[in-house]
Amino acid sequence: MHALAPESLKDQQSRLTGEILVRIRAKRPRIHCITNAVAQNFTANVLLAAGAIPSMTLSVGEIADFVRGADALLVNLGTFDQERREAVEIAIGSAAESGRPWVLDPVFVDRSGPRTQFAKALMGKKPAIVRLNAAEFTAIANAPAAEEPLRRFALDHGCVAALSGAVDIVTDGARTGKIENGDSLMARVTAMGCAGTALVAACLAVESDPWLATVGGLLAFAVAGECAAARARGPGSFAVEIVDAVANIDSETLLTRARVS
Amino acid sequence: MHALAPESLKDQQSRLTGEILVRIRAKRPRIHCITNAVAQNFTANVLLAAGAIPSMTLSVGEIADFVRGADALLVNLGTFDQERREAVEIAIGSAAESGRPWVLDPVFVDRSGPRTQFAKALMGKKPAIVRLNAAEFTAIANAPAAEEPLRRFALDHGCVAALSGAVDIVTDGARTGKIENGDSLMARVTAMGCAGTALVAACLAVESDPWLATVGGLLAFAVAGECAAARARGPGSFAVEIVDAVANIDSETLLTRARVS
Amino acid sequence: MHALAPESLKDQQSRLTGEILVRIRAKRPRIHCITNAVAQNFTANVLLAAGAIPSMTLSVGEIADFVRGADALLVNLGTFDQERREAVEIAIGSAAESGRPWVLDPVFVDRSGPRTQFAKALMGKKPAIVRLNAAEFTAIANAPAAEEPLRRFALDHGCVAALSGAVDIVTDGARTGKIENGDSLMARVTAMGCAGTALVAACLAVESDPWLATVGGLLAFAVAGECAAARARGPGSFAVEIVDAVANIDSETLLTRARVS
Repeated sequence: MHALAPESLKDQQSRLTGEILVRIRAKRPRIHCITNAVAQNFTANVLLAAGAIPSMTLSVGEIADFVRGADALLVNLGTFDQERREAVEIAIGSAAESGRPWVLDPVFVDRSGPRTQFAKALMGKKPAIVRLNAAEFTAIANAPAAEEPLRRFALDHGCVAALSGAVDIVTDGARTGKIENGDSLMARVTAMGCAGTALVAACLAVESDPWLATVGGLLAFAVAGECAAARARGPGSFAVEIVDAVANIDSETLLTRARVS
Repeated sequence: MHALAPESLKDQQSRLTGEILVRIRAKRPRIHCITNAVAQNFTANVLLAAGAIPSMTLSVGEIADFVRGADALLVNLGTFDQERREAVEIAIGSAAESGRPWVLDPVFVDRSGPRTQFAKALMGKKPAIVRLNAAEFTAIANAPAAEEPLRRFALDHGCVAALSGAVDIVTDGARTGKIENGDSLMARVTAMGCAGTALVAACLAVESDPWLATVGGLLAFAVAGECAAARARGPGSFAVEIVDAVANIDSETLLTRARVS
Repeated sequence: MHALAPESLKDQQSRLTGEILVRIRAKRPRIHCITNAVAQNFTANVLLAAGAIPSMTLSVGEIADFVRGADALLVNLGTFDQERREAVEIAIGSAAESGRPWVLDPVFVDRSGPRTQFAKALMGKKPAIVRLNAAEFTAIANAPAAEEPLRRFALDHGCVAALSGAVDIVTDGARTGKIENGDSLMARVTAMGCAGTALVAACLAVESDPWLATVGGLLAFAVAGECAAARARGPGSFAVEIVDAVANIDSETLLTRARVS
């Protein structure tokens, strides 16, 4: 009889992610989403597939109530207008007051000056997690999109920073994880990144460690993308299959497919 | 030779519902929808699948024209903002003037005070049909969500009230029908309830008895949900299959599957 | 040994369309879309399937930046409101300044007076292409929807005019093409026409002759519709299949299926 080998990082993250998904299905957390018009429907369906309950109102008269009644808040800057700008300010204030964690997805900040400024100001309002791609990181952080600047950015802002790309990098400054899963079809469907960040928010609603929640949400979504790609014939069927895959993903699939380091 | 057995309620409703669907496909009624941003695309596709012609504009400068040119109006409060609030007032005024029937879907009124007040005011403006779930009914009616309070609510407001749940209850105060069809996947796709109410509005456009239109629309959609679930592998494919099922449903399927009492 | 037969018009258009599609996939042009809320998601997914990069912001503070960074602009009047009206003015101004071509899709102008007036004013601002159906053409041009008035309209406005219907007619006044491809399911999915016009804008981004770009976009989309219909079981699955078909269409399919004269 011999001792068990210590659990590998890959196996540990797969197991913890599987546990987070089970908690979402059991607790059915409410996620309030301020997101762009293009992404609203797909984001809601990915959250529902995972077991969470999305709400999407932007009305300044009632968004504070919705955030107070939610378990986590998602702020996505995809289609950025006056209505959403005001909604964001109120929602983040309500989240701070009621102790709800929030996640920032600064979509397309590299494409417009006013959006960059707004996103920088939001970084001062203590998001638990920010997720962005290389161009967006460079626009907000005035730094090259690489592991070391990302670590410093996370430390400076006291948040988890997740840089998406061929390999996703997730860091809180102390811990850094890398996820190699995913499929190229994910870039061929609109709002795919937005929905992935929403899934991170759902993980954050049931997992108090934001680094684990981020790795879990991104890993689960990337593995779901691989399962979907195996069945899809193009980006149309892929968008359908990934919703099914989010609903059906389990620890065994995660253990088999995860490429985490 | 012996007399035919009298037609059962289930068979009668299945037959009448089948006839309503045939009329929608033949007459192609126009349905103007004020609905939330999350639900617009799916609602339009369910209406088109049924054979109706949806329009969705919210512009205060032209919504009166659209309602006047429509055969029925749907008012859904899902994402409630200043633009939609104004659009609703004008649209209902235009519907009253031109004798168009309208249907109210007071989504999430239980989640915000201003929305509850707005929905209560709308109940005074003579919707032909209101469809809501238990929490929404309790918020608007200040009463438990049960058959007897629902009957009184329908009588007080001179409308058909449809309470959705595991069993849908549809009453105009005098007649009460119960629909047991449906599938649990219907709660896992966003805007599914909104689209079901839109189908009720399409039935109302071709059937002058609002109680029959409500039972017909909800029965057809719940049976379509069962057909879709039989083919789906998760909520993503379910959302696609139910649109196909709405387009393909016929009297024979309704007769086989309907559970109405 | 004998001379090759001259290439037929059908074969020539199929070949040129195939070449345009290859250029979109290689160059990945950016298309900025001002489009209605119902159409945004589907339009973005059709553009991504073709290989283009869509953006959709309407914010008056940043739309000029997005148009300047784009290769073509789409203006669709489907849900017409104050926000979009202002966005359109700024976007067209920015397109003129930076020499970006733009395409007009005057959806539902026949249903409301203010929308007709707005569309007429836009025709004075030099769209490269306008695409409309018979009722929309009659509302804007005060003329019957037929080939000769369409030719005059194109000449008067110095643009390509594309009249959609059972047969699509595309003319710049000098050249006139007719496309007989397509499937009746295309009229049973919302935003199908909007997405088709978006594909024309993507073709215009890589093809400087707007008449060729229009014939190419409409032909490719109509043939994709036929491929999708061959696999679909109803409008739900058709909407998924046509996105896959746009991604997968090639010159051989175009040559086999094209009915152009």
